[in-house]
Amino acid sequence: MKKLINRPEAVVDEALEGLVAAHPGELRLAAPRVVVRADAPVAGKVGLVSGGGSGHEPLHAGFVGAGMLDAACPGEVFTSPVPDQILAATRTVDAGAGVLHVVKNYTGDVMNFELAAELAAAEGLEVRSVLVADDVAVENSTWTAGRRGVGGTLFVEKIAGAAAEAGLPLDAVHALAARVADGSRSMGLALAGCTVPAVGRPGFELAPDEMELGIGIHGEPGRQRVPLAAADEAARMLLEPVLDDLPAAAGAPLLVFVNGMGATPLIELHIVFRAAAAIVRERGFAIGRSLVGSYVTSLDMAGCSISVLALDDELARWWDAPVRTPALRWGA
Amino acid sequence: MKKLINRPEAVVDEALEGLVAAHPGELRLAAPRVVVRADAPVAGKVGLVSGGGSGHEPLHAGFVGAGMLDAACPGEVFTSPVPDQILAATRTVDAGAGVLHVVKNYTGDVMNFELAAELAAAEGLEVRSVLVADDVAVENSTWTAGRRGVGGTLFVEKIAGAAAEAGLPLDAVHALAARVADGSRSMGLALAGCTVPAVGRPGFELAPDEMELGIGIHGEPGRQRVPLAAADEAARMLLEPVLDDLPAAAGAPLLVFVNGMGATPLIELHIVFRAAAAIVRERGFAIGRSLVGSYVTSLDMAGCSISVLALDDELARWWDAPVRTPALRWGA
Repeated sequence: MKKLINRPEAVVDEALEGLVAAHPGELRLAAPRVVVRADAPVAGKVGLVSGGGSGHEPLHAGFVGAGMLDAACPGEVFTSPVPDQILAATRTVDAGAGVLHVVKNYTGDVMNFELAAELAAAEGLEVRSVLVADDVAVENSTWTAGRRGVGGTLFVEKIAGAAAEAGLPLDAVHALAARVADGSRSMGLALAGCTVPAVGRPGFELAPDEMELGIGIHGEPGRQRVPLAAADEAARMLLEPVLDDLPAAAGAPLLVFVNGMGATPLIELHIVFRAAAAIVRERGFAIGRSLVGSYVTSLDMAGCSISVLALDDELARWWDAPVRTPALRWGA
Repeated sequence: MKKLINRPEAVVDEALEGLVAAHPGELRLAAPRVVVRADAPVAGKVGLVSGGGSGHEPLHAGFVGAGMLDAACPGEVFTSPVPDQILAATRTVDAGAGVLHVVKNYTGDVMNFELAAELAAAEGLEVRSVLVADDVAVENSTWTAGRRGVGGTLFVEKIAGAAAEAGLPLDAVHALAARVADGSRSMGLALAGCTVPAVGRPGFELAPDEMELGIGIHGEPGRQRVPLAAADEAARMLLEPVLDDLPAAAGAPLLVFVNGMGATPLIELHIVFRAAAAIVRERGFAIGRSLVGSYVTSLDMAGCSISVLALDDELARWWDAPVRTPALRWGA
């Protein structure tokens, strides 16, 4: 295993220390593995909390900051955060306006966020939850009942985060987050599996002429092992099932997000975006907004995913709103 | 070779098409392989042009935009841009206030930028040039006389870009760029080599227990092959030679940039930053500003580099100034 780490068991805490050290005045650790905005709680503002297993960086801790998350709770690599951790985050960001949990649909995450929400409610905090389940590749998986939550999580966190920053009340932020989660669709592929530090070998092995279609973000097997395809064809394999399932009117402007899985260089992602843009137009949609980069990753997996959301004026406005986090930053 | 590409010979042009398509209204192709700000030339503003071989994305085309470069000229992968291409970029961004070329110290780049500058001068354009040679690993290399230009290039482009955006005249922008180039130091290491698409196999092979210290950004051999080290020790191997050579007063605040080489996930870069911050303090300096991410890459090379620049108030102010490019974006 070739990684720039010290000890496998220290990876998560040392990376969070590094993240916070690189953003003084913007982020702090409110407790171990509870990354919050330095200015939390923000008076009058709905608090946004997300979390999940580590290994998907910058998701979620890299999205903490003005206009996006108030707190992130990273678990061990590919392991759900614990309820006490989520509860601590919820308490820290609550400013009396309530807290929204953004939860990716994995059995452990769902259970632990539910438990934390119950504990918070018992303390008198108002907590709502939105479930992200945008991966069209599989109906159920090793780790989930129902679809997995993947790249669409970024859409929910950015758009709900902008609305919360603007001072919308909990009902409205919750409804908006649910609308984005309902409208988001994603699918991914891998050219090479990823290696969990504590395991030391890749979760799956691919021959030089193979790729894995419909992978999740935990090194779990995908939908189908297929011959290695050219970028244009690979983009089509991802985007056709996504668009087939997308709740969108003909001609709608789409937010198209080409995401790297961790070890895929940007030059390749731009080639995939080029292909994706052509397919979007061919299917009668427009490119409304776009994002290209490695934001929802799977350690050192090579590959990419494509996530799509149909925009209306309101969603586009929240997407464009200022955001100031380590990983997404514009207009502020 | 497992890459998300179509044909090796189409990689550069297709990636640039994708980049421009993902940033409509911000970037355009003024000519093949000449990426410019959509609003170029900007009246009254010094034009900033850089370029070099492709394969280092987002450098340079991902740094085109308000507050940084006016144009980038990407060559074939790891191959210098040609003089005509640099001349076209220079003409396109010239608004009468002169043009500054930011050139990394590689023999081909230096020669072709010089030729382009002479051709531009013959047309009556005022062109200056700054050479970046920040890599402390080797004195001469396969591709250079003198030190190579690597991560410090980002510092020069950001800081000179901010000054040009603020309307400073060519003399001042040139002097500032030269001061940043003179003050920047970098060094990198690789855990695995990179594969040039047209070649199809890695430039060098490393055993599972080896790493290459002092690598450049072209898959060329480094200073020394050493046993694979833990992140803390690896950070020290890079940062000690950098700080030993850094022109900086005791206690100075440093801009510290931990850069991924292309295939190294962010979680590892944050572990390296944590170690680097400790070494900076141990050596009696302070962390003034920081940047962590994959910005000056070498295709799918695994590894990292560390670049450092001692800041004063003026440099910090230009670093903090708004920038709006595909890869670096804040305050605007």
